[in-house]
Order: sequence, then C-alpha cells, then structure tokens
Amino acid sequence: MRLRLHNFYRSSTSTRLRAALNLKGLNYEYLAYALRKGDHRSAEFLAINPAGLVPVLELGDGTALTQSLAIIEWLDETYSEPPLLPEDPAARARVRALAYMVACEIHPLNNLRVLNRLGMQFNAGDDAVAQWFVHWVTATFDPLEAMLADSRETGRFCHGDAPTLADICLYAQVWNNRRFSIPLETWPTIARIFAELDGLQAFRDAAPQNQPDAE
Amino acid sequence: MRLRLHNFYRSSTSTRLRAALNLKGLNYEYLAYALRKGDHRSAEFLAINPAGLVPVLELGDGTALTQSLAIIEWLDETYSEPPLLPEDPAARARVRALAYMVACEIHPLNNLRVLNRLGMQFNAGDDAVAQWFVHWVTATFDPLEAMLADSRETGRFCHGDAPTLADICLYAQVWNNRRFSIPLETWPTIARIFAELDGLQAFRDAAPQNQPDAE
Repeated sequence: MRLRLHNFYRSSTSTRLRAALNLKGLNYEYLAYALRKGDHRSAEFLAINPAGLVPVLELGDGTALTQSLAIIEWLDETYSEPPLLPEDPAARARVRALAYMVACEIHPLNNLRVLNRLGMQFNAGDDAVAQWFVHWVTATFDPLEAMLADSRETGRFCHGDAPTLADICLYAQVWNNRRFSIPLETWPTIARIFAELDGLQAFRDAAPQNQPDAE
Repeated sequence: MRLRLHNFYRSSTSTRLRAALNLKGLNYEYLAYALRKGDHRSAEFLAINPAGLVPVLELGDGTALTQSLAIIEWLDETYSEPPLLPEDPAARARVRALAYMVACEIHPLNNLRVLNRLGMQFNAGDDAVAQWFVHWVTATFDPLEAMLADSRETGRFCHGDAPTLADICLYAQVWNNRRFSIPLETWPTIARIFAELDGLQAFRDAAPQNQPDAE
C-alpha cells in the first residue's frame, strides 16, 4: 500500500509514527510541514485534517488517518510483524499505560501551540516556558522511572526485550526534552532504555535530526 | 473478577472509566479520592499508582491498572460484549482518533493540576483560567464537530449506532465543560450525540453528579 506521511521533523508525535513505520519495515513518502511557518494551517492541509495537526498518514485510497497513537494501533493491527504490543491483555494495559503517561501527561502540555499560548496569554518569556516544560516532564518522568525500575516486566526495553508502543513514545519524548537541555541521568532506567532504542536503526532513522527537513 | 475503582466523581478520566464499566455491565467497588484535599497524594495511594493519578482499576489479584484509556482497552479485550471499538481497522483508527482528540488535545490541558499550575506559575486568576479552558475546548471541538458532521460514518453516536470509545471520551469532556458554562449549541452534532448518550443508563450512571462522593 502506498503511504504518505504528512509530518515535521521535530514534532514528537511525528517521531513516534516514523519509528513505528520503520519498525514495521514500511516505506513511505515524506511530506514536510514547517510548523513555525504555519504550513499546517493551509487550506490544502486542513482539507486533509481539519484539526490542522501533524502527523497524518494518507493511505493509497485517500483515507487520511490522524492522531499518532490511533495510526500506530492501526499499523499494528494491519501489519502484524513485529508486534508493537504484547499478547496478554494485562501486559498490553501496562504498555499502553506507560505510553499514555507520555502521550497524555507530558506531550500535550509541551507542544509548540501550547508554549506559544503561554506567551500570548501570560506573556511567558523563554525562562518561564522552559520552567513549564521541565515541570511537566519531571512530574511524569519521576513516577515513570519508578514504575520502570520497580517492575520485573521491564527488560531491555520498557516491556520485555522487544520495543513496544511505550518505547516509541518514550524515545520521541526524550528527543523533545533535549530542546530544553533536560539531563537524562536523573532517570537512570529511562536513560538506559533510551540508549538501547537509539542503538536500533528503526529508531535512529526516526530521530528528528535525521529527517530531510531538519534545520 | 472483583474490581475496585479508585476515582473521583468530577474527574473526567474517571467518568470515562465508569461509563466503560457500566457499558460492559460490570460491578465494581467505588473508592473516592477528594483531589482538592490531596487524597491522591497519600503514601497509600502512591503505592498503588506512583503517578498519583486517578482513575486506577484494581483487579482481584492486586494488579493495579492505570491510565483510563489503557484500562478501557483492557476492558474491551477482556470483556468482549458490547464492543467499544468497531471491527474494521480503519474504523477503529477513526474511533481512536476521535477519542484521542479529546484525550490528548483537550483534557491534559484542562485538568485540575494544570489549572492550579497556571495560578502558581503565572498568577492566573479565575477569568484567565476560564479563558485557557475554553480556548483548548474550542480549538478541538471546532474540528471535531466538522469531522463528525462531514462523515457518513457518524451515526446516532460518533461512529455508527452503538457507543464507542470516542463517545466515552466525548461524554466525559462535555460534563467537564459545564464547569465553565461552555454552551454546547455551538457544536450541534456534538450536542446531539451528547443528548443521545445522556439518554443511556450506562452513561447517565457514570455522570459526575450521580456518584456517591458528588458534592
């Protein structure tokens, strides 16, 4: 199937989806949207996704899939190997919970439009924005570290010895953190897993700086 | 299986989980946490969920499931009837995307700890907090309304004629909106679907004001 990826190199949700596509061994056409220039607000893109958000995965029949986690679940249901979720329901719940800690508690608070809004509504300068960003990363990475360090289910990766949806979200978030120079050593288990992930070609090829539109 | 629900009547993510449990026809023990009093920061609760967030669903064997969407996916995988996601992968992707628009773009920005943070970091008063809340609801409800109104897949509910994960997230968010008196008529399709949902016993019984800890 022909796949077209509408995305932006530095968007964390785009990084997630690129990693998932790479893990599944799928080729895709790369379409870049410069968010700071407002490419995602064009009439053409809004016709594809009325929410004006990347990433979007466009299928050969013109179907436009939105929301990175929904697209990754679709990929996992459509291309079974390698699986991005374990088989056992309780294990799946653990992996999804770890993924959603990043996807529902950190990223939504720290993406570009939210940081811009802090400036517009509260005159937040660079320092205040950085403080906000670090606050939400810490509020979730602290318990995430504890949950990973304390569980026998944590292996080479977040769950066992194969990468899952949880690793995909974690990997993208750590790259995002680097924009604010957050030292990863504070969370040794997360740091170890990130290093493991960054050693895999599928993840490395999804990293922001390795994209054609990287500045 | 014995199920214990750690939750709070007004927590939107708790409302989601109650609706899912009710739709599946499952009984559960209701354990209330007064978030404004900090019940969720007790050592006892942090031992159950290090993130200090409700809801948590505790299973008979002591397993504590966290993150409402992960728990609902677990419920759907464990108790098949009625399904909360359609069978077709593309339809599942649509339902999940609609759900995540609420769960990843609105709720994370508008929950209690974020509104408190606006006060602490930016001295935001009631008016500024309300403006923030309404801003993020509008930013997503506008495109959500368009996506629901323009799709032939929308039926009596968000997807077809049976309630799904998307309806669960939407229903909980609309109750949350009422705290800031956001008029629902702005989004006629959302308003129609909410009215349909509110006519179902499973949803009505999950609504904040119908819980034992409601003030």
